[in-house]
Amino acid sequence: MSVAAYIRPDRLQADLDALTAITDPGRPHTRRSFSPHFLEGRAWLADRFRQAGLTTRIDDAGNLIGRRPGTMPDLGTLMSGSHSDTVPDGGRFDGILGVLAALEAARAFADAGLALRHDLDIVDFLAEEPSDFGLSCIGSRGMAGALSAEHRTLRAPWDEGLADAITRMGGAPDRLDTPRRTDIRAFFELHIEQGIVLEQAGIQIGVVDAIAGVTRLDITFTGRADHAGTTPMDLRQDAAVPAAAIVTFVHDQASTLARSGAGHVTATCGVLALSPGASNVVPRAARLVVDIRVSNRPVAEALVASIRSACIEAAAASRTTLARFTIQSDTHPTPCDPALAALVEDAAHAQGFSTRHMVSGAGHDAAFVARLAPTAMLFVPCRDGRSHDPDEWCAPEDATRGTMVLAEALAMRDRID
Amino acid sequence: MSVAAYIRPDRLQADLDALTAITDPGRPHTRRSFSPHFLEGRAWLADRFRQAGLTTRIDDAGNLIGRRPGTMPDLGTLMSGSHSDTVPDGGRFDGILGVLAALEAARAFADAGLALRHDLDIVDFLAEEPSDFGLSCIGSRGMAGALSAEHRTLRAPWDEGLADAITRMGGAPDRLDTPRRTDIRAFFELHIEQGIVLEQAGIQIGVVDAIAGVTRLDITFTGRADHAGTTPMDLRQDAAVPAAAIVTFVHDQASTLARSGAGHVTATCGVLALSPGASNVVPRAARLVVDIRVSNRPVAEALVASIRSACIEAAAASRTTLARFTIQSDTHPTPCDPALAALVEDAAHAQGFSTRHMVSGAGHDAAFVARLAPTAMLFVPCRDGRSHDPDEWCAPEDATRGTMVLAEALAMRDRID
Repeated sequence: MSVAAYIRPDRLQADLDALTAITDPGRPHTRRSFSPHFLEGRAWLADRFRQAGLTTRIDDAGNLIGRRPGTMPDLGTLMSGSHSDTVPDGGRFDGILGVLAALEAARAFADAGLALRHDLDIVDFLAEEPSDFGLSCIGSRGMAGALSAEHRTLRAPWDEGLADAITRMGGAPDRLDTPRRTDIRAFFELHIEQGIVLEQAGIQIGVVDAIAGVTRLDITFTGRADHAGTTPMDLRQDAAVPAAAIVTFVHDQASTLARSGAGHVTATCGVLALSPGASNVVPRAARLVVDIRVSNRPVAEALVASIRSACIEAAAASRTTLARFTIQSDTHPTPCDPALAALVEDAAHAQGFSTRHMVSGAGHDAAFVARLAPTAMLFVPCRDGRSHDPDEWCAPEDATRGTMVLAEALAMRDRID
Repeated sequence: MSVAAYIRPDRLQADLDALTAITDPGRPHTRRSFSPHFLEGRAWLADRFRQAGLTTRIDDAGNLIGRRPGTMPDLGTLMSGSHSDTVPDGGRFDGILGVLAALEAARAFADAGLALRHDLDIVDFLAEEPSDFGLSCIGSRGMAGALSAEHRTLRAPWDEGLADAITRMGGAPDRLDTPRRTDIRAFFELHIEQGIVLEQAGIQIGVVDAIAGVTRLDITFTGRADHAGTTPMDLRQDAAVPAAAIVTFVHDQASTLARSGAGHVTATCGVLALSPGASNVVPRAARLVVDIRVSNRPVAEALVASIRSACIEAAAASRTTLARFTIQSDTHPTPCDPALAALVEDAAHAQGFSTRHMVSGAGHDAAFVARLAPTAMLFVPCRDGRSHDPDEWCAPEDATRGTMVLAEALAMRDRID
């Protein structure tokens, strides 16, 4: 009998319900990293880890780790997990599904009487969501040696430094200048998709090939505020005109690239502000923010370059000025390990589940763990793509399927030295 | 010697300075209609009228009128004026130049020993600017019988009804159901251009052929708020995309019409708001307001129809919904009297001043007086097009030229029965 058969949906759902219930009661579901509710959730988690026979500890980066020892510890460690913090007014699954599924897998191994050869670490990464320190993925950055001394001086609104906060979580921030782990042989993260691709396609398991890089452009055109009635069209310097051209260009260009097999490409103008913003005044300035998520770095660079050219052209055509074109943030795409992805796919097919290869357009702890070890991510559908929202919903059967595939993939990976 | 030679620039400038100095001292230049500073300005004006030998009265609509009697009153009345109220933080010339230039013309007639055959009325119209009652051109509407009973029930934030406020100004609001004047033979209004056409072309006098109608469209597209990273381009319903297409369409269409000899055509998207307006969320809704100013009514109607079609098309192409397409306000263009415009042009050329025919894209009292009598408007340049702004500026020589043309045009019109 496959180990996946030992996954108990009732136990998984009970855990999901119990951890979801630990929230700021005034605004479910809110467990902000570093907060009392977060610590309460962690205490509950550590307790559940121990009940499953895991030994628990907090690592130097403030991550909660539950270990199930292997029979051949020299082979190194298999790791799985996600995060238990949330955004304000967040969902029931974003993060905790990946932690609790890994815990359920560990319990299934125990129930099956299966001793893994590798050590197995179940991780609750610290502060994956954008935190009050203005930084996300704090725990996975720290594990990977990617939490800089500068990051550690960031301060929260309650005037606590990040280093002190990590210490308060049980970590040792002074040791984070270098990667903390060399023993990890494979990392698996299960997560809800946070999108509508699987649901619309009727696919049960998403096999993630890469986590897209995110590039944010901050663009401002400036023209001249003039009377909308008395200023002839050919004497205007209307900043809305080049901004509109860029919204159209960005959408068309990203759509064309996405259709042309350039991998995952999305580009979004979610912010567009006109000044002064009065109906009878020609706009003096238009600011827009472009969010670009691409799985292939050269495609991202070419897209940014083409947007820059389009901005210069649009400014010239409208007699306005491209007053700002700033790359606000820029992370590279993270490829997942193809062998591990194939293994996840095999594990899914072994259970008779349908799969689809895809790219994660959202960021995850896996992108930092990938700096340390071969990494795989798997997605399950979530209703209507809702996430970071109290309406976020993952059907119990989808949560179960993801957990079964995770357990099976871990067991399969354990058989490889 | 032409009567224009009796215009005294020093006297005109002294009057402009004196009335400008009557302002809310904390926010020059502010004389809001119905306010104590407005009444102080009017008292000063009435005094200057009387010093010039005019007899003063407040008409039923609350307009201040100074009369210089003619030798053949049966011929009817020539009228000239503008308004002395301002927007908050307004300019030094918008309104008062037209009142004080008409007063200076009356003084020039006296200095020249010129008795006009027609009665001459110099008018300070009540509340031309958008008032605290949410209505503009109150005095000229009232004179034209266009201040409805419903208008008169409007209330100001200090809880005074408009009828009571007109009574407080000295008017008789109960008599405003019908036009108040049948004696006016011609009306002339001098105003700063509030635009950059004359300045950029180096022209001294603008001869206004029409006052544009104003149509405001309130448009909303709705789509779906989705994660900007996880939602593929071809599954989005991005409300920013059709909104951008409409900004481009409106600008291109109005520019083409303006170039094609369709008269004055401007169209402006000064308001464009995205919801939720976050960089990592596909916009769920986009609202835009389109301000259209056209001198030819069928052109305005065709432009609105083409924008409506473009909206329907843009919504379909982006899988979004055109949730609202409302004509928020809609006034028809007002043609000026061609014979009076020719007379203004002749008066300017007689002084050696350059002229250009143009359309007023801004609204004026003249648009309401035109319901009663043949109407002419003339513009003088203002620096950099600034208006409704403390930086508003009209060079003294331009103010003088406008006043000379106004006086000459009145004298020429007086020679016609």
